[in-house]
Amino acid sequence: MSTPIDFFFDPASTYSYLAATQIEAFAKEHGTTVQWKPFLLGKAFEATGNKMPALIPAKGKYLFKDATLWAKLYKVPFAFPKNFPLNSVLASRAIIAADQAGQGVPFALAALTSYWAEGGDLTQPDAIAAIASKLGLDGAAIVAATGEATVKDVLRANTEDAIARGVFGAPTFFIGKQMFWGNDRLPLMSAFIKGELA
Amino acid sequence: MSTPIDFFFDPASTYSYLAATQIEAFAKEHGTTVQWKPFLLGKAFEATGNKMPALIPAKGKYLFKDATLWAKLYKVPFAFPKNFPLNSVLASRAIIAADQAGQGVPFALAALTSYWAEGGDLTQPDAIAAIASKLGLDGAAIVAATGEATVKDVLRANTEDAIARGVFGAPTFFIGKQMFWGNDRLPLMSAFIKGELA
Repeated sequence: MSTPIDFFFDPASTYSYLAATQIEAFAKEHGTTVQWKPFLLGKAFEATGNKMPALIPAKGKYLFKDATLWAKLYKVPFAFPKNFPLNSVLASRAIIAADQAGQGVPFALAALTSYWAEGGDLTQPDAIAAIASKLGLDGAAIVAATGEATVKDVLRANTEDAIARGVFGAPTFFIGKQMFWGNDRLPLMSAFIKGELA
Repeated sequence: MSTPIDFFFDPASTYSYLAATQIEAFAKEHGTTVQWKPFLLGKAFEATGNKMPALIPAKGKYLFKDATLWAKLYKVPFAFPKNFPLNSVLASRAIIAADQAGQGVPFALAALTSYWAEGGDLTQPDAIAAIASKLGLDGAAIVAATGEATVKDVLRANTEDAIARGVFGAPTFFIGKQMFWGNDRLPLMSAFIKGELA
């Protein structure tokens, strides 16, 4: 078994969604596993001076079209959210709560798909509860857990860990100490895991 | 024959170098050709509000390591230039002059390799002349041509064209109206050319 892949993502990030749809199959194909680590990208922006790419209008316009092409490549749904940008604190805490209830990855995928393809509003506790319930979780309990220190502390720790390891954007992957930034780094990560970049 | 690929690049851009080493083989493999278009990335930054990524220290640190991995993937030399960042006006004009002398692509590749792998200083007319001479061009004539309107006007026109078409970074490719930003978009461009993203 190879080194696990640490996958730092924020539900508010378009390319985190795209990468999330691919990373489990990618890891399986490469004989490894994924540690899903939701973190607050906004805090990494504050810490590093980096900014949301969509703040540059020409870049924002391009990235929407680009994400549309990646979604077609991956054959996953994509529709730019009406309520963009997303305050992702509740969603990220809910992913951690769902993880503590044994359903982190399915919940994360369902939540990201809801926001990035189905018009879902992840700032609403009712929407979070509905996503959890569909997976057989106790929706009300997941929402309640988002207020607990056992959940909030994990999000804070993931964010501090990300910043300490040099993260300035999302998604960011680590394979051991090697960092890879962006959904578009999967081909490079593949070559790295196969030992082709030594 | 498919639509040609417009390849907007700046010798000052790391990922322009990496893409330049790949784009001719990529185009050939996809049954198409490349229009090499040197432009002034700094002007596109001014026009769009975008900034050099290396201005964010955490990003700059990562990108150097990232470029090193891409160079290994591509099996091309790479050594971070001592004289970074590069004022690329002379180099870009020389590429256009070499193109007008029938050697645009070989000269561009030689110049970018000199700067990004061999410690060459492309701000020096002597260095430009030496690169041209090695290719059998008249080095002094290439340097002289960089002061001519017939060369300077092409660089200005390429830059204006790039900005008008939404370019905010380098390298940027166009296949018809579809824009692709970054060396890392070659796999996506491949799928696009093959009609897999329709």
